[in-house]
Formats: sequence, structure tokens, C-alpha cells
Amino acid sequence: MTKLTLDPALIETNSALQDHFGYRLTGWEAGRASLELPLIPQLMNRSGIPHGGVYATLLDTAMGYAGCYTGDPDRKALALTLSMTVNFLSRPKGQLLIAHAERTGGGAKTFFAEAHIVDETGEMIARATGAFKLRETR
Amino acid sequence: MTKLTLDPALIETNSALQDHFGYRLTGWEAGRASLELPLIPQLMNRSGIPHGGVYATLLDTAMGYAGCYTGDPDRKALALTLSMTVNFLSRPKGQLLIAHAERTGGGAKTFFAEAHIVDETGEMIARATGAFKLRETR
Amino acid sequence: MTKLTLDPALIETNSALQDHFGYRLTGWEAGRASLELPLIPQLMNRSGIPHGGVYATLLDTAMGYAGCYTGDPDRKALALTLSMTVNFLSRPKGQLLIAHAERTGGGAKTFFAEAHIVDETGEMIARATGAFKLRETR
Amino acid sequence: MTKLTLDPALIETNSALQDHFGYRLTGWEAGRASLELPLIPQLMNRSGIPHGGVYATLLDTAMGYAGCYTGDPDRKALALTLSMTVNFLSRPKGQLLIAHAERTGGGAKTFFAEAHIVDETGEMIARATGAFKLRETR
Repeated sequence: MTKLTLDPALIETNSALQDHFGYRLTGWEAGRASLELPLIPQLMNRSGIPHGGVYATLLDTAMGYAGCYTGDPDRKALALTLSMTVNFLSRPKGQLLIAHAERTGGGAKTFFAEAHIVDETGEMIARATGAFKLRETR
Repeated sequence: MTKLTLDPALIETNSALQDHFGYRLTGWEAGRASLELPLIPQLMNRSGIPHGGVYATLLDTAMGYAGCYTGDPDRKALALTLSMTVNFLSRPKGQLLIAHAERTGGGAKTFFAEAHIVDETGEMIARATGAFKLRETR
Repeated sequence: MTKLTLDPALIETNSALQDHFGYRLTGWEAGRASLELPLIPQLMNRSGIPHGGVYATLLDTAMGYAGCYTGDPDRKALALTLSMTVNFLSRPKGQLLIAHAERTGGGAKTFFAEAHIVDETGEMIARATGAFKLRETR
Repeated sequence: MTKLTLDPALIETNSALQDHFGYRLTGWEAGRASLELPLIPQLMNRSGIPHGGVYATLLDTAMGYAGCYTGDPDRKALALTLSMTVNFLSRPKGQLLIAHAERTGGGAKTFFAEAHIVDETGEMIARATGAFKLRETR
């Protein structure tokens, strides 16, 4: 997985949920995005491992970014998730979730994307696919 | 949707994520569960509406409970999500997410479930299906 | 499951795949459709049970019909499947697959639907959800 | 996509559905499989393009093979699909569907796989993910 670049001019103000979870955008290019999320205790389920919803949140966010890239801070696009499927492959061995997403197809109004999460040890934890509506704003 | 009962003896200590999100179990019967989540500002995405991951978290949790019911506080079962699909139908008009889940099939080691989220106005917001592994603990 | 009605004026010429598989539309109302498929030997997989793709075909078709109903033979709508998830719950005990589908949400251009297959003994065999694009034709 | 090898000793008798559809196994290695399906008229839907169920059938079959490889004609494994999601990206420009599948994770009893279909022009047509149960037979 090549490390993606991130143009600082494209970074937006954190969303509320982003601060609540603690993830951050680490790479954003045309059709691709990457995010990182340190595994803080608040994200754990009743078995003491990250809740599946945490992975879903990260994967959904990464896929949305991958399909929303415009490269222009003044032209923003918005992804609305229509459908998302997450497969849960393993549990983390490390302390950091790293998500990579890629747009796989679609057109001007709809796009498809896939994403996966590994931790810093390389363990493959979850994989997702989704269908999204795309909207330009402003 | 009939209101489910909840035996207080079955309520477990909140998980960390549960406190972080603020959802609570409101009903739990054989093959069924319901949860509620007040829409606090921390759950919002960059568009100011609940992040899709919030719905995924609630739906995954509700489906897990629906398949895990034993009715006996001393005999616990654990659901491991293998795969979950979420369809995002609408956005909330109200302030409270109400999730209902139902086991739809499976056997002793695997189960299937479906869940949906409405808000207190009755708006249908998201629907999910999932396949789960089931494990008895202790 | 209430039996759906079917207005003979709405029945279209069989598609090629429909003849190849042998399914037929048995009910079609606003937001709902039902189909039946006799389990002929040609539909079996290497284990001698119906191939999962047979269920997927029937479920996809039923959901498409459920979202395409106009009630007017001169105004046709077309469903394009964006994403479909199928859960495989059990195998048939009988000889006839019966699919029921229902539109669960959406608007003028996109819709969501769910469907399930039982056999004539009532065995629940497969359940599906999908997101679709909707197009009116002529 | 590297062309996969296929050990003739591993080829099994065609299943009934395989003959009915006309697909064939073209490559099979540990954790990977490829299939081809010529687009005969019988596979078309009411719009004259391949029915989504045809893609689902091919993708399900390819993923099943990918997870079932033992390399030993006397030791067979069987994949039972628990859940499969198909995203429909485009329609074929050519006359041949080419499916590639890869096992992405899992253990001795459950596996995950992904697959996609391109046509001979390279057009990306459909992508799938699935969760499967694995059973050794004999």
C-alpha cells in the first residue's frame, strides 16, 4: 500500500464524531483516502475489543472521502452512503487502526468504493464495500 | 412493533463504547432486542447529521443482542459479527434513535439477524442484515 | 404473508433468463412482488442443492419488480441494481421456491428493497436487501 | 491480474447449473480461482443485458472455489455461502465474463473472499465480497 499524500489546504474542520472517536485523515488523492484511529479505551465493546461499529465508522468515512476528492478547497463534494457491507476478518494485535479506501467505479451521481483496515502490525482486520450518492455542494 | 420486555437481571455493566455513545438496551427477549440512542451532538458528521457509523454501531449491537439471548444471567453468549450490511434510507426528523433487531435463522454456532432504526417520529432511517458466529462463555 | 394480486395487463413477455430458469411472476402490487421457481435439476450445484446464484437471481428479480410497479402497462419503470446482499439461511425441503419482495424506502431515483425465499413447506431459505436505481422508460 | 494455473487433476465433473449457464473453471490455486462465462442469449434480462443474478452466480462460484482449494484431488472441501454482497458497477462491452476471486481471511471453519468480473475488453462489471463456511468432505 503506497502512502497517500495529503494537501493541507484540503483538510476541513473536524466533525463532531471525528473528535469523539479521534480519527484523522492521513492521505487524500483522487479516488483514494487513508485514515488513522488510535485505539482508545472508549472504543471497546463488552468483550474488551473494538466494537464492530468503530470499524464500520472508519471504513464508511474512508470510502466517503475516496469518492469525494475534488482537489479544490473551494469545490466540495458530499458522499451519502446508500449501502455498506463490512466483513470482520480478525481483531487487532496493535494499538492503531489504519484504513485505506479506493473508489472502484461509478459516475457523476453514484460511486462505488472499497476499504480495509489493518493495524500497525499489518494484521488485516476488516474489509468493506459500499455504494454512495455523490453531491457537489456550493 | 410490539414493545419488548427486559429482565433487569440480564442487564450487564455498560461497555466502554456504550457509555461513549450513550445507547442503552431497552428490550431483550429470545431472538429479539431493542436499543435507544439519544442524538447527542458528538455523533454528528461533517454535514451535521448522524454519521453512518453511528447507525452501524447501533444496528450491529442490536443484532448481536438478538442472537445472544439466553435468559439466564449465569449463562452468557457472545456474538461475533462475520458480515453486516447497512442500507441508509433516510435521515432522522427527531432526536432519538430506536433500534429493533430480530434473529432470522441459523443454528448453534452461526446465526443471522436483521435490524432497523426508526426515530421517535416513526421515520425509517436505516436497515441492516448480518451473519454472526455464536459462542457461549463460561 | 398475504397473497399478492397480479393484473394480467401488466405481465410482460418473458425475458430470456426467465425462460432459462423457469421462474414466473405470481403477484405484483405497489411496492411488492412475488415470484415462483420450480426446482428443476438444471439449477443444482456440485453438492446437488440449488446454487446460491439461483437464490440471488430470484431475490434480485423480485426486489426489482417491487420497486418498479407503476400499475400502468404503458408506463414502465426499470430497476438497476446498485448493490445486493444475500444471506443464505437454509436449504429447501420442498420443490418450489417462493420469493416475496417489498420496497422499504427511497425516492424518485433510488429505492431500497428486501426479499426472502421460502419453499412450499415454509422453510426460510434466503433473505436479501438491495439498493437500486430507478428509471422510467417511455 | 496474473493468469492462474489449473491442475487438470483437480477439475471435477460439471455441476448441473454449470452446464446450464456455461461457465468453466480456468484457474485454481491456493486461495484463488478464475472462471469464464461466454454471454449466451439465455442469460439476458428484460433489458437485454445480463441479469444481475448471472454475475452473482459467477462471483459466488469463484469465491467458493478460492476458499476450497486443497490441491489434492482426494481431499475435497466444500464452501457454504453464509452471506454475499454484489456491487454492480457497469455493463459488459464484450461477450465474455471473466471472474477472479481471492480468499481474504478466515480460519479452518469460516473464510472470507472477494471477487470481481471484467469482460474481455477490461470493463469492470461487478465486484463481490462474501463470508463462507468451510467443510472438508471425505
